[in-house]
Amino acid sequence: MNLAAQVQRMIKTTALVLSVMLCYTAVTDCQLNARTEINIPDIGRYKTLKCDFHMHTVFSDGSVWPTVRAEEVWCEGLDALSITDHIEYLPHKSDMVIDFHRPYEIAKPVAESLNLIIIKGTEITRAEPMGHHNALFLSDVNLVDTPDSLDAIKAAAEQGAFIFWNHPGWKRPDGRAVWSPAQVEIFGNGWLHGIEVVNGFDYYPNAHAWCIEKKLTMMCSTDVHAPINQSYDLSGNNHRPMTLVFVQEVSEKGIKDALFKRRTAVYFKNTLIGEEEYLKPIFDESIEILTKNITINGKGRANIQIHNISDVSYELVMEQTGGETEQLITIPANITLYANKTVILPVRGVSVSLSGMKNIKMQYRVTNLLVAPDEYLQVEIPIKVTFVPVANN
Amino acid sequence: MNLAAQVQRMIKTTALVLSVMLCYTAVTDCQLNARTEINIPDIGRYKTLKCDFHMHTVFSDGSVWPTVRAEEVWCEGLDALSITDHIEYLPHKSDMVIDFHRPYEIAKPVAESLNLIIIKGTEITRAEPMGHHNALFLSDVNLVDTPDSLDAIKAAAEQGAFIFWNHPGWKRPDGRAVWSPAQVEIFGNGWLHGIEVVNGFDYYPNAHAWCIEKKLTMMCSTDVHAPINQSYDLSGNNHRPMTLVFVQEVSEKGIKDALFKRRTAVYFKNTLIGEEEYLKPIFDESIEILTKNITINGKGRANIQIHNISDVSYELVMEQTGGETEQLITIPANITLYANKTVILPVRGVSVSLSGMKNIKMQYRVTNLLVAPDEYLQVEIPIKVTFVPVANN
Amino acid sequence: MNLAAQVQRMIKTTALVLSVMLCYTAVTDCQLNARTEINIPDIGRYKTLKCDFHMHTVFSDGSVWPTVRAEEVWCEGLDALSITDHIEYLPHKSDMVIDFHRPYEIAKPVAESLNLIIIKGTEITRAEPMGHHNALFLSDVNLVDTPDSLDAIKAAAEQGAFIFWNHPGWKRPDGRAVWSPAQVEIFGNGWLHGIEVVNGFDYYPNAHAWCIEKKLTMMCSTDVHAPINQSYDLSGNNHRPMTLVFVQEVSEKGIKDALFKRRTAVYFKNTLIGEEEYLKPIFDESIEILTKNITINGKGRANIQIHNISDVSYELVMEQTGGETEQLITIPANITLYANKTVILPVRGVSVSLSGMKNIKMQYRVTNLLVAPDEYLQVEIPIKVTFVPVANN
Amino acid sequence: MNLAAQVQRMIKTTALVLSVMLCYTAVTDCQLNARTEINIPDIGRYKTLKCDFHMHTVFSDGSVWPTVRAEEVWCEGLDALSITDHIEYLPHKSDMVIDFHRPYEIAKPVAESLNLIIIKGTEITRAEPMGHHNALFLSDVNLVDTPDSLDAIKAAAEQGAFIFWNHPGWKRPDGRAVWSPAQVEIFGNGWLHGIEVVNGFDYYPNAHAWCIEKKLTMMCSTDVHAPINQSYDLSGNNHRPMTLVFVQEVSEKGIKDALFKRRTAVYFKNTLIGEEEYLKPIFDESIEILTKNITINGKGRANIQIHNISDVSYELVMEQTGGETEQLITIPANITLYANKTVILPVRGVSVSLSGMKNIKMQYRVTNLLVAPDEYLQVEIPIKVTFVPVANN
Repeated sequence: MNLAAQVQRMIKTTALVLSVMLCYTAVTDCQLNARTEINIPDIGRYKTLKCDFHMHTVFSDGSVWPTVRAEEVWCEGLDALSITDHIEYLPHKSDMVIDFHRPYEIAKPVAESLNLIIIKGTEITRAEPMGHHNALFLSDVNLVDTPDSLDAIKAAAEQGAFIFWNHPGWKRPDGRAVWSPAQVEIFGNGWLHGIEVVNGFDYYPNAHAWCIEKKLTMMCSTDVHAPINQSYDLSGNNHRPMTLVFVQEVSEKGIKDALFKRRTAVYFKNTLIGEEEYLKPIFDESIEILTKNITINGKGRANIQIHNISDVSYELVMEQTGGETEQLITIPANITLYANKTVILPVRGVSVSLSGMKNIKMQYRVTNLLVAPDEYLQVEIPIKVTFVPVANN
Repeated sequence: MNLAAQVQRMIKTTALVLSVMLCYTAVTDCQLNARTEINIPDIGRYKTLKCDFHMHTVFSDGSVWPTVRAEEVWCEGLDALSITDHIEYLPHKSDMVIDFHRPYEIAKPVAESLNLIIIKGTEITRAEPMGHHNALFLSDVNLVDTPDSLDAIKAAAEQGAFIFWNHPGWKRPDGRAVWSPAQVEIFGNGWLHGIEVVNGFDYYPNAHAWCIEKKLTMMCSTDVHAPINQSYDLSGNNHRPMTLVFVQEVSEKGIKDALFKRRTAVYFKNTLIGEEEYLKPIFDESIEILTKNITINGKGRANIQIHNISDVSYELVMEQTGGETEQLITIPANITLYANKTVILPVRGVSVSLSGMKNIKMQYRVTNLLVAPDEYLQVEIPIKVTFVPVANN
Repeated sequence: MNLAAQVQRMIKTTALVLSVMLCYTAVTDCQLNARTEINIPDIGRYKTLKCDFHMHTVFSDGSVWPTVRAEEVWCEGLDALSITDHIEYLPHKSDMVIDFHRPYEIAKPVAESLNLIIIKGTEITRAEPMGHHNALFLSDVNLVDTPDSLDAIKAAAEQGAFIFWNHPGWKRPDGRAVWSPAQVEIFGNGWLHGIEVVNGFDYYPNAHAWCIEKKLTMMCSTDVHAPINQSYDLSGNNHRPMTLVFVQEVSEKGIKDALFKRRTAVYFKNTLIGEEEYLKPIFDESIEILTKNITINGKGRANIQIHNISDVSYELVMEQTGGETEQLITIPANITLYANKTVILPVRGVSVSLSGMKNIKMQYRVTNLLVAPDEYLQVEIPIKVTFVPVANN
Repeated sequence: MNLAAQVQRMIKTTALVLSVMLCYTAVTDCQLNARTEINIPDIGRYKTLKCDFHMHTVFSDGSVWPTVRAEEVWCEGLDALSITDHIEYLPHKSDMVIDFHRPYEIAKPVAESLNLIIIKGTEITRAEPMGHHNALFLSDVNLVDTPDSLDAIKAAAEQGAFIFWNHPGWKRPDGRAVWSPAQVEIFGNGWLHGIEVVNGFDYYPNAHAWCIEKKLTMMCSTDVHAPINQSYDLSGNNHRPMTLVFVQEVSEKGIKDALFKRRTAVYFKNTLIGEEEYLKPIFDESIEILTKNITINGKGRANIQIHNISDVSYELVMEQTGGETEQLITIPANITLYANKTVILPVRGVSVSLSGMKNIKMQYRVTNLLVAPDEYLQVEIPIKVTFVPVANN
């Protein structure tokens, strides 16, 4: 056997051995068995759970078996799910034996083997303007299958369900939700606990405002019907829309408690939507100022390095305050603190003669942290600057 | 409203407008509505169809609705599919109304609206050593549901089905297929037309050899059960394993004809497996020599630029021939012609005094084009070299 | 040696062999030796060359050796370049032996070995409002090193140089270019032939308008100083900003001719900017309608599949014409024809009773093909529809 | 203005506003101003610094300005660098004013503004078999420019330099290093402190062995000459080859101390090479067992979830011990703990009748953690299993 033949044999052997190794890897680990954790920090005494409480399976108008929903959610780094198949809309019913409890029963053992929390739920699917509602923590889904629409909501509420209004602006020509008599009645009876501020690819600003005014819980769901990858791009740092739930206890009970107490935020593309009391600590826990103490020579430049440990790229716009900061240094008007990166925030002195040390709080608005439909979270980045006067600068 | 407020408003408006635009795009086009064509050239009078004839749905032990299989196949750039649910293995039967024709019937309108060719098929799932077989082009799947295993194959053959043996080395401790008395009988009766040389992540070298010896058709399938993205990495230039079918006519009939006439090749990771008469033209049609005429000054260097229009990165190892080429120029011992790239193949003169023009055929083996389990396709890269003698070099 | 040890040895051997193979590959081919062709089609009798005529090296204020510019350009799929170091701004002069011809002389052999066209050029770097100009096709750069600014431009013009005004809105507070007396004089003397409509990351709408009004050539450059990857994200389908030059002959002469005759377009991110006579055929050559003949049953849906062979994702917005098309079918208001993908454009019938065949031209504006600062290219997508009436639909 | 025109105007405005925003972002932050931290944990009382002490610039045969080396290193997440231009090989000398201290002097202010540690160094470039050596922490590089080769090493040693032998197997036909009389003398005189176990894409197993036997420091360098992206693929989780230095103090002094005390490891592709005392804690600090307490019912399955916080994907092969573990549970023969992912390690019971709680240490070899050329790090994964007997299983 000549050298070329030997080389070929070696390469072939290598390729096959490797192929076997990679194959095994690919089928067992790379796809199903590897989970990408979502980096959104815990806040204070609450753990931040990543949840999706609105999804479908072949048991209503979805196109996957219930176990797929648990597997997808685990792979993507979520902690809890609820399968919420329609009661009233069953296009596969001639091919399936419909039983409203089956999606939960089928998915439960898989979810549990993956350490996920799975919550029994359903979608109550009625005509507009009442529209669709999800009911979580039901004990008997069959009781919600009533002829009258309000009766269905009532039947869910009587089981202690957490009920939220789905995609409130859906089918409206302008995409804006309307608070109709149906909502007046449901809310008036204490049967409405939350609204989807985001469903799939749609953000509903007025639903956002209602959650603040009426003290309802902000929800964010996929409403996914197809395999998740058909509907959402999950490459790179992308993720499904989800509800962040701030729990005291990692359990179904912990989630239920947090949902009823409005301890949630919406995580949608690169935006977080929620009350300031939750968004502020998320931002503060996400960033680490690596160079807190800087020295500026006259009108010279210094670099502040900021590391963002979260998956959210924070988009900062300077808040003009007319305050002390602007009399001491100039700071960038815009800066992005990229997800999982360290970024340089350059600052410059404004005077050749300044001396001594100053504590400075740079003021910014984070334009992708919405505390209300028209309002961005205000944040401070504290640094300590030693000013050194310079003769000619 | 001060400037900062204006800026914020502008940014917000932009973000929302953009968000709406992107959303629409994402849900409608980016995921479901965009297809990545597979670049493997047509050869001579045959069109190269990309096909997968082995996949499952919720109707047997898969986890997706049949329509998903057509959508996945279209997105990935394939041209034809067959859903081959098990007849004998029906783990979902308590939740489903099983009818062996339903997967095909449900998927057909979706496949047709996507211009795909869908072929009725089934998997005949019997105990080892007979093992599993797929039967394509069946008219009545129910006739194959027989108590006796051989009867099932016979019933399929009598309908004119194309029958191939699935994952022949599956469950063998060494992964090698065995040609048992069952195969002797099936093959002897003329009921066996092909074998899966690749199933999922496994390549069966002896099945490959049998296809050559016994004139059987080489098949390559996913045998996918889950949503395709759960089992296969489809990012970048990756693709599912598939059978290339060389057809005279783009139709079910064209495919049937090609399958029975053994006009197929296996496309598995970055490897093509098939008869030389198919692999050779695929290679030749894939590459374009951009700089066919080069000039070499003495022992100097010249760059040959080669553009590969296919999705296969060809891995070339020089074939030592002792022939004329080696007396004129030195060429790289190894080179990869990257998929969809232009690559430089550098050559050098071996003499300061050579002059005149020569037609040279560089000889290589392509180690990822397998014409037999132990044999790589031999190829030639023809160039025209003008040698210029050099005084001192 | 026990089995585990054997397995380990095998894995290690494999890993090392592979490592060696991959190493070689990586250093020789993957990085420097592989070129990604840019897919923008040729048009009519012109070949579409991809060019960058504005870049710097260590010989002025850049940070790379001249050969790097040729290597980068080749890897990225461009066809021609000009290194245009500053004459007047030489921050490295205490470390370098400055000679204005050296960047060209050093880069030329590398460029030629890569089949690139390299053009001698320089940047004439004078104070605002005259600003900076590039002069291409110079024979003697030293003659342009004059005390007076206008003399420099004149000296370049007298050598037959092609002269274009760089980043015309640079340093303006609002980013808008101003046509100052300096421009009046240079243009009046016939010394100005083009303007950078795009420089780096900046688009100058009024420079765009001037090119149309004053019959100047539209230019697009990187003005790159650092290694290209430090300034531009080239991952995925990204590319540097560049000038498309439509040549009759692939040569320096062909480029010079095209530049003086204004046969160029700007390729910037996902946008093309140019005259309709160039953008229209680029669009038409980019798309292939795979399903030209469709059938619509009553108010049913049909899918038109369109394959885009170019690297530009065309963003279409329906043009409301009130014409025949709208009386026959409804078409999507927005659709993106993704780069290198096949996309579905779904259409629907508007009447149950329509019958017969119609040739329909769907009218769209392509919002990323700018024929003027305020105007998008209008395009037609022709299809042939067979209408089939339906009883109840 | 009709609706279509309005839509177009809106889209255009959006696109331009966004384009401006993205531009700024891209040029300022995305490329130069964002750093990707390298996740390799600190160990015990040592911080793990990521360092590259072998690179070139235009001042010898490299192709970038010295500042580029500091910028590249910062972007890629390294902590320290040394520019080591050749003294004896100066191909650019007719274009440059060569001064051996200039690369350091030019790069230093940029490195410091980025909080990097930059160390003065040089490459002493002599003929084989002595070969090339890097000398770090020099005070006067000129003193090393001696006619005699050994004198040069001596001159560096006398300045207290840390001296390591570069690419020891370079230019050998078989790629294996040879310990020649030159090495005997240099080592015998105490002038040799380390060897490059990896240079660029090459691993030298016998240099690895010598580092262990002769108590030399293991080094890993790029020896980069071109812009880093031309030579190395840095996409995804890829990184340049580098030396990990385990320091007590983050300073030049801390690095010098660690280098002389052999507290280093090699980080090359997905492999770490080093003494067990460093690799063991890196592995242990990298992985977190999320489900330490599992329950196994009879011969049932349980999932252990392991989160790997490092950038290294650990490749585990089961160590067959014949010990207790194998009598209690079956564990996977191979598993990859993917970088930055959570992976499932599935285990199964072996007996229906087992009961009670057991502490089990699963034994694995990590085939990409090399403690010697033929030896992989042995690790334990401790879990606590509660066995529940099952009637029929």
